[in-house]
Amino acid sequence: MIRFFEKDPYAPIQYTYEVEKILYKGRSPFQEIMVFENSYFGKILVLDNVVQLTERDEFIYHEMLTQVLMHSHPEAKTVAVIGGGDGGAVREVLKHDCVSKLYFIEIDEEVIKVSKQFFPSVSSSIDDPRVEIRCMDGAEFIKGMENSLDVIFVDSTDIIGFAKSLFTVEFFKSVRDALTENGMFVTLSESLIFHKDLVYEVQNSMKLIFPIVDLYTASIATYAGNWWTFSVGSKSLDPRQIRKPIKVPTKLYTEELHKSCFLPRDLYDKLMKKELLW
Amino acid sequence: MIRFFEKDPYAPIQYTYEVEKILYKGRSPFQEIMVFENSYFGKILVLDNVVQLTERDEFIYHEMLTQVLMHSHPEAKTVAVIGGGDGGAVREVLKHDCVSKLYFIEIDEEVIKVSKQFFPSVSSSIDDPRVEIRCMDGAEFIKGMENSLDVIFVDSTDIIGFAKSLFTVEFFKSVRDALTENGMFVTLSESLIFHKDLVYEVQNSMKLIFPIVDLYTASIATYAGNWWTFSVGSKSLDPRQIRKPIKVPTKLYTEELHKSCFLPRDLYDKLMKKELLW
Repeated sequence: MIRFFEKDPYAPIQYTYEVEKILYKGRSPFQEIMVFENSYFGKILVLDNVVQLTERDEFIYHEMLTQVLMHSHPEAKTVAVIGGGDGGAVREVLKHDCVSKLYFIEIDEEVIKVSKQFFPSVSSSIDDPRVEIRCMDGAEFIKGMENSLDVIFVDSTDIIGFAKSLFTVEFFKSVRDALTENGMFVTLSESLIFHKDLVYEVQNSMKLIFPIVDLYTASIATYAGNWWTFSVGSKSLDPRQIRKPIKVPTKLYTEELHKSCFLPRDLYDKLMKKELLW
Repeated sequence: MIRFFEKDPYAPIQYTYEVEKILYKGRSPFQEIMVFENSYFGKILVLDNVVQLTERDEFIYHEMLTQVLMHSHPEAKTVAVIGGGDGGAVREVLKHDCVSKLYFIEIDEEVIKVSKQFFPSVSSSIDDPRVEIRCMDGAEFIKGMENSLDVIFVDSTDIIGFAKSLFTVEFFKSVRDALTENGMFVTLSESLIFHKDLVYEVQNSMKLIFPIVDLYTASIATYAGNWWTFSVGSKSLDPRQIRKPIKVPTKLYTEELHKSCFLPRDLYDKLMKKELLW
Protein backbone atom coordinates (compact mmCIF):
# COMPACT_ATOMS: atom_id res chain seq x y z
CA MET A 1 0.00 0.00 0.00
CA ILE A 2 1.23 3.51 -0.88
CA ARG A 3 1.05 6.10 1.87
CA PHE A 4 1.41 9.85 1.92
CA PHE A 5 3.44 11.08 4.90
CA GLU A 6 2.65 14.69 5.60
CA LYS A 7 5.64 16.88 6.42
CA ASP A 8 4.11 19.79 8.29
CA PRO A 9 7.04 21.66 9.83
CA TYR A 10 4.65 23.07 12.42
CA ALA A 11 3.26 19.80 13.74
CA PRO A 12 4.63 17.43 16.36
CA ILE A 13 2.39 14.67 14.99
CA GLN A 14 2.91 13.43 11.47
CA TYR A 15 -0.29 12.62 9.59
CA THR A 16 -0.36 9.75 7.13
CA TYR A 17 -2.99 9.07 4.49
CA GLU A 18 -3.43 6.03 2.32
CA VAL A 19 -3.01 6.82 -1.34
CA GLU A 20 -5.39 5.08 -3.74
CA LYS A 21 -3.92 6.87 -6.70
CA ILE A 22 -1.73 9.89 -7.36
CA LEU A 23 -3.67 12.07 -9.79
CA TYR A 24 -1.26 14.96 -10.23
CA LYS A 25 2.24 15.96 -9.28
CA GLY A 26 3.91 19.14 -10.41
CA ARG A 27 6.03 22.12 -9.44
CA SER A 28 4.94 25.71 -9.77
CA PRO A 29 7.36 28.63 -9.32
CA PHE A 30 6.16 28.73 -5.70
CA GLN A 31 5.62 25.20 -4.47
CA GLU A 32 5.12 21.52 -5.12
CA ILE A 33 1.54 20.63 -5.91
CA MET A 34 0.10 17.16 -5.55
CA VAL A 35 -3.38 15.66 -5.78
CA PHE A 36 -4.17 12.14 -4.68
CA GLU A 37 -7.21 10.00 -4.08
CA ASN A 38 -8.01 8.59 -0.63
CA SER A 39 -10.86 6.15 -0.05
CA TYR A 40 -12.27 8.08 2.92
CA PHE A 41 -11.51 11.73 2.16
CA GLY A 42 -11.85 11.66 -1.61
CA LYS A 43 -9.37 13.83 -3.47
CA ILE A 44 -6.73 15.56 -1.38
CA LEU A 45 -4.75 18.68 -2.35
CA VAL A 46 -1.20 18.88 -1.03
CA LEU A 47 1.12 21.90 -1.26
CA ASP A 48 4.76 21.49 -0.26
CA ASN A 49 3.91 18.23 1.49
CA VAL A 50 1.16 19.73 3.66
CA VAL A 51 -2.50 18.79 3.18
CA GLN A 52 -4.52 21.87 2.20
CA LEU A 53 -7.92 20.36 1.71
CA THR A 54 -9.81 17.13 1.28
CA GLU A 55 -13.05 16.82 -0.66
CA ARG A 56 -14.75 15.30 2.34
CA ASP A 57 -14.03 17.88 5.02
CA GLU A 58 -13.09 21.10 3.17
CA PHE A 59 -16.49 22.58 4.02
CA ILE A 60 -15.49 22.92 7.67
CA TYR A 61 -12.54 25.20 7.02
CA HIS A 62 -14.15 27.11 4.16
CA GLU A 63 -17.46 27.74 5.90
CA MET A 64 -15.78 28.77 9.14
CA LEU A 65 -13.29 31.03 7.38
CA THR A 66 -15.98 32.93 5.50
CA GLN A 67 -19.51 32.56 6.85
CA VAL A 68 -18.83 34.11 10.26
CA LEU A 69 -17.91 37.53 8.85
CA MET A 70 -20.28 37.24 5.89
CA HIS A 71 -23.08 37.07 8.46
CA SER A 72 -21.60 39.58 10.85
CA HIS A 73 -21.11 42.27 8.21
CA PRO A 74 -24.55 43.69 7.43
CA GLU A 75 -24.02 43.86 3.67
CA ALA A 76 -20.66 42.97 2.16
CA LYS A 77 -20.66 44.20 -1.44
CA THR A 78 -16.98 44.29 -2.31
CA VAL A 79 -14.84 41.51 -0.93
CA ALA A 80 -11.30 40.19 -1.32
CA VAL A 81 -10.07 36.63 -0.87
CA ILE A 82 -6.28 36.51 -0.51
CA GLY A 83 -4.95 33.04 -1.24
CA GLY A 84 -7.26 30.05 -1.30
CA GLY A 85 -6.45 29.21 -4.89
CA ASP A 86 -8.67 26.14 -4.63
CA GLY A 87 -11.69 28.45 -4.75
CA GLY A 88 -13.42 27.13 -1.62
CA ALA A 89 -13.57 30.51 0.10
CA VAL A 90 -14.72 32.14 -3.15
CA ARG A 91 -17.54 29.62 -3.43
CA GLU A 92 -18.71 30.35 0.11
CA VAL A 93 -18.57 34.14 -0.25
CA LEU A 94 -20.50 34.08 -3.54
CA LYS A 95 -23.38 32.26 -1.91
CA HIS A 96 -24.28 35.78 -0.75
CA ASP A 97 -26.24 37.80 -3.31
CA CYS A 98 -25.15 41.08 -1.72
CA VAL A 99 -21.64 40.53 -3.09
CA SER A 100 -21.22 42.36 -6.38
CA LYS A 101 -17.44 42.19 -6.69
CA LEU A 102 -14.89 39.67 -5.42
CA TYR A 103 -11.17 40.17 -5.88
CA PHE A 104 -9.54 36.76 -5.86
CA ILE A 105 -5.82 37.22 -5.22
CA GLU A 106 -3.78 34.06 -5.58
CA ILE A 107 -0.02 34.25 -6.02
CA ASP A 108 0.17 30.80 -7.58
CA GLU A 109 -1.86 30.45 -10.78
CA GLU A 110 -1.06 26.75 -10.92
CA VAL A 111 -3.13 26.08 -7.80
CA ILE A 112 -6.19 27.59 -9.47
CA LYS A 113 -5.64 25.47 -12.59
CA VAL A 114 -5.17 22.26 -10.62
CA SER A 115 -8.23 22.96 -8.51
CA LYS A 116 -10.38 23.63 -11.56
CA GLN A 117 -9.26 20.33 -13.01
CA PHE A 118 -9.51 18.08 -9.94
CA PHE A 119 -11.82 19.82 -7.45
CA PRO A 120 -14.82 21.09 -9.42
CA SER A 121 -17.04 21.08 -6.32
CA VAL A 122 -14.59 23.41 -4.57
CA SER A 123 -13.59 25.66 -7.47
CA SER A 124 -17.13 25.86 -8.86
CA SER A 125 -17.51 29.63 -8.47
CA ILE A 126 -14.15 30.84 -9.74
CA ASP A 127 -15.61 31.68 -13.14
CA ASP A 128 -18.52 33.66 -11.69
CA PRO A 129 -18.62 37.08 -13.45
CA ARG A 130 -18.35 38.85 -10.09
CA VAL A 131 -14.85 37.39 -9.62
CA GLU A 132 -11.73 39.26 -10.71
CA ILE A 133 -8.69 37.02 -10.48
CA ARG A 134 -5.29 38.58 -9.95
CA CYS A 135 -2.29 36.33 -9.68
CA MET A 136 -0.04 38.41 -7.46
CA ASP A 137 1.21 38.82 -3.91
CA GLY A 138 -1.71 39.53 -1.58
CA ALA A 139 0.21 42.12 0.41
CA GLU A 140 0.99 44.07 -2.78
CA PHE A 141 -2.64 43.97 -3.87
CA ILE A 142 -3.94 45.23 -0.53
CA LYS A 143 -1.43 48.12 -0.54
CA GLY A 144 -3.03 49.40 -3.72
CA MET A 145 -6.58 49.48 -2.33
CA GLU A 146 -8.03 52.23 -0.19
CA ASN A 147 -11.34 52.39 1.64
CA SER A 148 -12.89 50.02 -0.87
CA LEU A 149 -13.26 46.49 0.56
CA ASP A 150 -16.05 45.53 2.96
CA VAL A 151 -14.53 42.22 4.03
CA ILE A 152 -11.07 40.74 3.48
CA PHE A 153 -10.38 37.03 3.91
CA VAL A 154 -6.85 35.66 4.13
CA ASP A 155 -6.78 31.99 3.17
CA SER A 156 -3.03 31.39 2.99
CA THR A 157 -0.74 28.48 3.62
CA ASP A 158 0.91 28.23 7.04
CA ILE A 159 2.35 31.40 8.53
CA ILE A 160 5.93 30.36 7.97
CA GLY A 161 7.19 30.16 4.41
CA PHE A 162 6.27 32.57 1.65
CA ALA A 163 2.93 33.52 3.24
CA LYS A 164 4.67 35.33 6.08
CA SER A 165 4.15 38.76 4.49
CA LEU A 166 0.44 38.29 5.28
CA PHE A 167 1.03 38.26 9.04
CA THR A 168 3.05 41.44 9.64
CA VAL A 169 1.90 44.62 11.37
CA GLU A 170 2.58 46.42 8.09
CA PHE A 171 0.16 44.12 6.27
CA PHE A 172 -2.52 44.58 8.93
CA LYS A 173 -2.12 48.36 8.48
CA SER A 174 -2.67 48.02 4.71
CA VAL A 175 -5.68 45.85 5.40
CA ARG A 176 -7.21 48.46 7.70
CA ASP A 177 -6.68 51.18 5.10
CA ALA A 178 -8.13 49.01 2.34
CA LEU A 179 -11.32 48.38 4.31
CA THR A 180 -14.44 50.53 4.18
CA GLU A 181 -15.72 52.27 7.29
CA ASN A 182 -17.34 49.19 8.85
CA GLY A 183 -14.92 46.77 7.23
CA MET A 184 -13.86 43.45 8.72
CA PHE A 185 -10.92 41.14 8.18
CA VAL A 186 -10.20 37.53 9.08
CA THR A 187 -7.13 35.36 8.71
CA LEU A 188 -6.24 31.85 9.78
CA SER A 189 -3.86 31.87 12.75
CA GLU A 190 -2.87 28.24 13.34
CA SER A 191 -3.66 25.89 16.25
CA LEU A 192 -4.51 27.04 19.75
CA ILE A 193 -3.04 23.81 21.09
CA PHE A 194 0.23 23.58 19.18
CA HIS A 195 0.92 27.26 18.44
CA LYS A 196 -0.66 29.38 21.13
CA ASP A 197 2.33 31.77 21.15
CA LEU A 198 1.82 32.40 17.46
CA VAL A 199 -1.90 32.96 18.01
CA TYR A 200 -0.96 35.44 20.74
CA GLU A 201 1.44 37.25 18.41
CA VAL A 202 -1.07 37.57 15.59
CA GLN A 203 -3.73 38.84 17.99
CA ASN A 204 -1.30 41.25 19.57
CA SER A 205 -0.15 42.62 16.21
CA MET A 206 -3.75 43.07 15.10
CA LYS A 207 -4.56 44.93 18.31
CA LEU A 208 -1.98 47.56 17.35
CA ILE A 209 -4.05 48.31 14.25
CA PHE A 210 -7.70 47.43 14.79
CA PRO A 211 -10.02 48.76 17.51
CA ILE A 212 -11.80 45.39 17.66
CA VAL A 213 -9.84 42.14 17.58
CA ASP A 214 -11.27 38.72 18.32
CA LEU A 215 -10.63 35.02 17.87
CA TYR A 216 -12.85 32.15 16.89
CA THR A 217 -12.03 28.48 16.48
CA ALA A 218 -13.02 25.32 14.64
CA SER A 219 -12.04 21.72 15.08
CA ILE A 220 -10.43 20.55 11.85
CA ALA A 221 -9.44 16.90 11.67
CA THR A 222 -7.05 17.23 8.76
CA TYR A 223 -5.01 20.17 10.08
CA ALA A 224 -2.50 19.14 12.73
CA GLY A 225 -3.30 20.73 16.05
CA ASN A 226 -6.95 20.68 15.13
CA TRP A 227 -8.16 23.39 17.40
CA TRP A 228 -7.78 25.83 14.56
CA THR A 229 -7.99 29.58 15.11
CA PHE A 230 -9.26 32.45 13.01
CA SER A 231 -8.17 35.98 13.95
CA VAL A 232 -10.56 38.83 13.25
CA GLY A 233 -9.78 42.54 12.98
CA SER A 234 -12.70 44.92 12.71
CA LYS A 235 -12.93 48.69 12.29
CA SER A 236 -16.22 49.13 14.15
CA LEU A 237 -18.49 46.07 14.23
CA ASP A 238 -18.41 43.32 16.87
CA PRO A 239 -17.88 40.08 14.89
CA ARG A 240 -19.72 38.02 17.53
CA GLN A 241 -22.97 39.65 16.45
CA ILE A 242 -24.98 38.34 13.49
CA ARG A 243 -26.44 41.12 11.37
CA LYS A 244 -27.90 39.14 8.48
CA PRO A 245 -30.44 36.29 8.45
CA ILE A 246 -28.82 32.96 7.60
CA LYS A 247 -30.26 31.93 4.28
CA VAL A 248 -27.30 30.45 2.42
CA PRO A 249 -26.90 26.65 2.47
CA THR A 250 -24.22 25.43 4.88
CA LYS A 251 -23.29 22.06 6.33
CA LEU A 252 -21.71 23.18 9.59
CA TYR A 253 -22.20 26.90 10.13
CA THR A 254 -25.35 27.80 12.04
CA GLU A 255 -26.58 30.80 13.98
CA GLU A 256 -25.76 29.21 17.30
CA LEU A 257 -22.38 27.98 16.14
CA HIS A 258 -21.54 31.58 15.23
CA LYS A 259 -22.08 32.53 18.85
CA SER A 260 -20.28 29.58 20.39
CA CYS A 261 -17.27 29.40 18.05
CA PHE A 262 -15.63 32.49 19.51
CA LEU A 263 -13.11 31.71 22.20
CA PRO A 264 -14.89 32.16 25.55
CA ARG A 265 -13.85 35.53 26.96
CA ASP A 266 -12.33 34.09 30.14
CA LEU A 267 -10.09 31.80 28.08
CA TYR A 268 -9.30 34.64 25.70
CA ASP A 269 -8.16 36.77 28.61
CA LYS A 270 -5.89 33.95 29.74
CA LEU A 271 -4.42 33.67 26.24
CA MET A 272 -3.65 37.38 26.08
CA LYS A 273 -2.20 37.44 29.59
CA LYS A 274 -0.03 34.49 28.61
CA GLU A 275 -1.70 32.44 31.33
CA LEU A 276 -2.60 29.43 29.22
CA LEU A 277 -0.57 26.72 30.88
CA TRP A 278 0.16 24.45 27.94
CA MET B 1 14.82 7.86 13.72
CA ILE B 2 12.29 5.50 15.33
CA ARG B 3 8.63 6.29 14.78
CA PHE B 4 5.44 5.04 16.36
CA PHE B 5 2.69 4.45 13.79
CA GLU B 6 -0.67 4.52 15.50
CA LYS B 7 -3.11 1.85 14.36
CA ASP B 8 -6.48 3.28 15.29
CA PRO B 9 -9.04 1.08 13.54
CA TYR B 10 -11.49 3.97 13.73
CA ALA B 11 -9.39 6.62 12.02
CA PRO B 12 -8.92 7.34 8.32
CA ILE B 13 -5.74 9.27 9.16
CA GLN B 14 -2.82 7.46 10.71
CA TYR B 15 -0.94 9.44 13.34
CA THR B 16 2.80 9.05 13.70
CA TYR B 17 4.95 10.16 16.60
CA GLU B 18 8.70 10.29 16.88
CA VAL B 19 10.01 7.96 19.55
CA GLU B 20 12.87 9.25 21.66
CA LYS B 21 12.90 6.12 23.75
CA ILE B 22 10.62 3.19 24.47
CA LEU B 23 10.22 3.07 28.24
CA TYR B 24 7.91 0.10 28.63
CA LYS B 25 6.38 -2.63 26.56
CA GLY B 26 4.23 -5.39 27.96
CA ARG B 27 1.12 -7.47 27.55
CA SER B 28 -1.68 -7.65 30.11
CA PRO B 29 -4.50 -10.20 29.87
CA PHE B 30 -6.48 -7.50 28.08
CA GLN B 31 -4.18 -5.52 25.83
CA GLU B 32 -0.71 -4.48 24.78
CA ILE B 33 0.67 -1.64 26.86
CA MET B 34 3.46 0.65 25.73
CA VAL B 35 5.02 3.83 27.07
CA PHE B 36 7.41 5.94 25.04
CA GLU B 37 9.04 9.33 25.25
CA ASN B 38 8.41 12.03 22.64
CA SER B 39 10.28 15.34 22.60
CA TYR B 40 7.12 17.45 22.26
CA PHE B 41 4.45 15.51 24.13
CA GLY B 42 6.56 13.99 26.88
CA LYS B 43 5.63 10.45 27.85
CA ILE B 44 2.89 8.80 25.81
CA LEU B 45 0.70 5.86 26.90
CA VAL B 46 -0.37 3.46 24.16
CA LEU B 47 -2.90 0.62 24.51
CA ASP B 48 -3.32 -1.83 21.63
CA ASN B 49 -1.46 0.57 19.33
CA VAL B 50 -3.76 3.52 20.06
CA VAL B 51 -2.51 6.60 21.93
CA GLN B 52 -4.45 7.02 25.19
CA LEU B 53 -2.72 10.04 26.64
CA THR B 54 0.31 12.25 26.41
CA GLU B 55 1.79 14.11 29.36
CA ARG B 56 1.52 17.38 27.49
CA ASP B 57 -2.13 17.41 26.49
CA GLU B 58 -3.87 14.91 28.79
CA PHE B 59 -5.40 17.78 30.77
CA ILE B 60 -7.72 18.59 27.87
CA TYR B 61 -9.42 15.22 27.82
CA HIS B 62 -9.39 14.70 31.58
CA GLU B 63 -10.69 18.14 32.49
CA MET B 64 -13.39 18.03 29.85
CA LEU B 65 -14.46 14.50 30.78
CA THR B 66 -14.91 15.37 34.46
CA GLN B 67 -15.15 19.07 35.27
CA VAL B 68 -18.33 19.73 33.30
CA LEU B 69 -20.47 17.40 35.40
CA MET B 70 -18.49 18.04 38.59
CA HIS B 71 -19.61 21.67 38.26
CA SER B 72 -23.09 20.92 37.03
CA HIS B 73 -23.93 18.53 39.85
CA PRO B 74 -24.50 20.68 42.95
CA GLU B 75 -22.63 18.40 45.32
CA ALA B 76 -21.27 15.08 44.11
CA LYS B 77 -20.34 13.02 47.16
CA THR B 78 -20.14 9.49 45.82
CA VAL B 79 -18.67 9.10 42.37
CA ALA B 80 -17.54 6.27 40.09
CA VAL B 81 -14.88 6.38 37.40
CA ILE B 82 -15.16 3.40 35.03
CA GLY B 83 -11.92 2.84 33.15
CA GLY B 84 -9.27 5.53 33.00
CA GLY B 85 -6.64 3.33 34.63
CA ASP B 86 -4.10 6.12 34.17
CA GLY B 87 -5.82 7.99 37.02
CA GLY B 88 -6.30 11.28 35.18
CA ALA B 89 -10.06 11.36 35.70
CA VAL B 90 -9.61 10.34 39.34
CA ARG B 91 -7.18 13.24 39.86
CA GLU B 92 -9.67 15.72 38.40
CA VAL B 93 -12.66 14.45 40.41
CA LEU B 94 -10.72 14.49 43.67
CA LYS B 95 -9.92 18.18 43.26
CA HIS B 96 -13.46 18.57 44.63
CA ASP B 97 -13.65 18.44 48.42
CA CYS B 98 -17.32 17.47 48.30
CA VAL B 99 -16.32 14.00 47.08
CA SER B 100 -16.09 11.59 50.00
CA LYS B 101 -15.98 8.33 48.06
CA LEU B 102 -14.69 7.47 44.60
CA TYR B 103 -15.07 3.98 43.13
CA PHE B 104 -12.30 3.50 40.58
CA ILE B 105 -13.22 0.57 38.35
CA GLU B 106 -10.49 -0.49 35.97
CA ILE B 107 -10.61 -3.89 34.31
CA ASP B 108 -6.86 -3.92 33.65
CA GLU B 109 -4.73 -3.67 36.79
CA GLU B 110 -1.58 -3.44 34.67
CA VAL B 111 -2.62 -0.03 33.31
CA ILE B 112 -2.81 1.32 36.87
CA LYS B 113 0.63 -0.08 37.69
CA VAL B 114 2.22 1.30 34.53
CA SER B 115 0.65 4.69 35.08
CA LYS B 116 1.86 4.87 38.67
CA GLN B 117 5.36 4.08 37.46
CA PHE B 118 5.58 6.34 34.41
CA PHE B 119 2.90 9.03 34.78
CA PRO B 120 3.06 10.28 38.38
CA SER B 121 1.50 13.62 37.46
CA VAL B 122 -1.53 11.81 36.05
CA SER B 123 -1.89 8.99 38.57
CA SER B 124 -1.12 11.23 41.57
CA SER B 125 -4.48 10.77 43.31
CA ILE B 126 -4.99 7.03 42.91
CA ASP B 127 -3.77 6.38 46.46
CA ASP B 128 -6.05 9.02 48.00
CA PRO B 129 -7.95 7.37 50.90
CA ARG B 130 -11.28 8.31 49.30
CA VAL B 131 -10.50 5.97 46.38
CA GLU B 132 -11.64 2.35 46.33
CA ILE B 133 -10.04 0.50 43.44
CA ARG B 134 -11.84 -2.51 41.98
CA CYS B 135 -10.24 -4.31 39.08
CA MET B 136 -13.31 -5.65 37.32
CA ASP B 137 -15.65 -5.09 34.40
CA GLY B 138 -17.35 -1.72 34.73
CA ALA B 139 -20.71 -3.03 33.54
CA GLU B 140 -20.65 -5.73 36.24
CA PHE B 141 -19.78 -3.19 38.93
CA ILE B 142 -22.59 -0.83 37.94
CA LYS B 143 -25.13 -3.68 37.97
CA GLY B 144 -24.40 -4.18 41.64
CA MET B 145 -25.02 -0.59 42.65
CA GLU B 146 -28.41 0.96 43.29
CA ASN B 147 -29.37 4.56 43.92
CA SER B 148 -25.95 5.26 45.35
CA LEU B 149 -23.74 7.20 42.89
CA ASP B 150 -24.08 10.93 42.28
CA VAL B 151 -21.98 11.04 39.13
CA ILE B 152 -20.62 8.25 36.93
CA PHE B 153 -17.78 8.84 34.46
CA VAL B 154 -16.94 6.34 31.75
CA ASP B 155 -13.34 6.77 30.59
CA SER B 156 -12.94 3.71 28.40
CA THR B 157 -10.96 2.85 25.33
CA ASP B 158 -12.69 3.18 21.96
CA ILE B 159 -16.24 1.86 21.67
CA ILE B 160 -15.24 -1.14 19.61
CA GLY B 161 -13.20 -3.84 21.27
CA PHE B 162 -13.68 -5.04 24.81
CA ALA B 163 -15.17 -1.74 26.01
CA LYS B 164 -18.33 -2.29 23.98
CA SER B 165 -20.31 -3.50 27.01
CA LEU B 166 -20.15 0.11 28.24
CA PHE B 167 -22.20 1.43 25.32
CA THR B 168 -25.30 -0.78 25.34
CA VAL B 169 -28.85 0.18 26.31
CA GLU B 170 -28.60 -2.43 29.04
CA PHE B 171 -25.55 -0.67 30.50
CA PHE B 172 -27.24 2.72 30.35
CA LYS B 173 -30.18 1.18 32.26
CA SER B 174 -27.85 -0.08 35.00
CA VAL B 175 -26.23 3.35 35.11
CA ARG B 176 -29.59 5.04 35.62
CA ASP B 177 -30.48 2.64 38.42
CA ALA B 178 -27.09 3.10 40.07
CA LEU B 179 -27.46 6.89 40.14
CA THR B 180 -29.01 8.87 42.97
CA GLU B 181 -32.11 11.00 42.36
CA ASN B 182 -30.27 13.91 40.69
CA GLY B 183 -27.51 11.72 39.35
CA MET B 184 -25.59 12.41 36.14
CA PHE B 185 -23.52 10.29 33.80
CA VAL B 186 -21.01 11.04 31.07
CA THR B 187 -19.15 8.87 28.60
CA LEU B 188 -16.83 9.54 25.69
CA SER B 189 -18.61 8.98 22.37
CA GLU B 190 -15.93 9.37 19.68
CA SER B 191 -15.51 12.03 16.99
CA LEU B 192 -18.33 14.13 15.59
CA ILE B 193 -16.43 14.40 12.31
CA PHE B 194 -15.37 10.80 11.73
CA HIS B 195 -18.09 8.92 13.64
CA LYS B 196 -21.24 10.98 13.66
CA ASP B 197 -23.41 7.87 13.16
CA LEU B 198 -21.90 6.36 16.29
CA VAL B 199 -22.48 9.59 18.21
CA TYR B 200 -26.08 9.47 17.00
CA GLU B 201 -26.45 5.87 18.16
CA VAL B 202 -25.06 6.54 21.63
CA GLN B 203 -27.28 9.59 22.04
CA ASN B 204 -30.30 7.68 20.78
CA SER B 205 -29.68 4.74 23.13
CA MET B 206 -29.28 7.11 26.06
CA LYS B 207 -32.53 8.85 25.19
CA LEU B 208 -34.36 5.55 25.71
CA ILE B 209 -33.19 5.58 29.33
CA PHE B 210 -32.55 9.15 30.52
CA PRO B 211 -35.01 12.06 30.55
CA ILE B 212 -32.17 14.48 29.81
CA VAL B 213 -29.50 13.65 27.23
CA ASP B 214 -26.97 16.09 25.85
CA LEU B 215 -23.66 16.30 24.04
CA TYR B 216 -20.60 18.43 24.53
CA THR B 217 -17.35 18.49 22.61
CA ALA B 218 -13.65 19.25 22.91
CA SER B 219 -10.91 19.58 20.34
CA ILE B 220 -8.27 16.97 21.11
CA ALA B 221 -5.18 17.00 18.92
CA THR B 222 -4.00 13.50 19.80
CA TYR B 223 -7.28 11.67 19.21
CA ALA B 224 -8.00 11.11 15.54
CA GLY B 225 -11.08 12.98 14.45
CA ASN B 226 -10.33 15.61 17.04
CA TRP B 227 -13.79 17.03 17.43
CA TRP B 228 -14.31 14.70 20.35
CA THR B 229 -17.74 14.16 21.89
CA PHE B 230 -18.94 13.47 25.40
CA SER B 231 -22.46 12.11 25.86
CA VAL B 232 -24.35 13.03 29.01
CA GLY B 233 -27.34 11.29 30.56
CA SER B 234 -29.05 12.98 33.49
CA LYS B 235 -31.97 12.00 35.69
CA SER B 236 -33.17 15.53 36.42
CA LEU B 237 -30.52 18.27 36.11
CA ASP B 238 -29.65 20.18 32.93
CA PRO B 239 -25.90 19.63 32.45
CA ARG B 240 -25.49 22.96 30.65
CA GLN B 241 -26.10 24.74 33.95
CA ILE B 242 -23.28 25.34 36.44
CA ARG B 243 -24.39 24.83 40.04
CA LYS B 244 -21.10 25.17 41.86
CA PRO B 245 -18.54 28.02 41.89
CA ILE B 246 -15.38 27.12 40.00
CA LYS B 247 -12.63 26.99 42.57
CA VAL B 248 -10.53 24.01 41.55
CA PRO B 249 -7.40 24.67 39.46
CA THR B 250 -7.83 23.90 35.76
CA LYS B 251 -5.86 24.69 32.63
CA LEU B 252 -8.63 24.67 30.07
CA TYR B 253 -12.02 24.35 31.75
CA THR B 254 -13.65 27.67 32.59
CA GLU B 255 -17.15 28.87 33.36
CA GLU B 256 -17.67 30.21 29.86
CA LEU B 257 -16.19 27.13 28.24
CA HIS B 258 -18.77 25.06 30.14
CA LYS B 259 -21.49 27.02 28.40
CA SER B 260 -19.95 27.00 24.94
CA CYS B 261 -18.69 23.41 24.83
CA PHE B 262 -22.17 21.92 24.41
CA LEU B 263 -23.11 21.32 20.82
CA PRO B 264 -25.21 24.30 19.69
CA ARG B 265 -28.85 23.25 19.76
CA ASP B 266 -29.46 23.88 16.07
CA LEU B 267 -26.54 21.60 15.16
CA TYR B 268 -27.66 19.05 17.75
CA ASP B 269 -31.10 18.95 16.15
CA LYS B 270 -29.48 18.32 12.78
CA LEU B 271 -27.42 15.47 14.25
CA MET B 272 -30.48 13.80 15.73
CA LYS B 273 -32.53 14.25 12.56
CA LYS B 274 -29.61 12.73 10.63
CA GLU B 275 -29.30 15.95 8.68
CA LEU B 276 -25.58 16.48 9.18
CA LEU B 277 -24.32 16.27 5.62
CA TRP B 278 -20.85 14.86 6.14
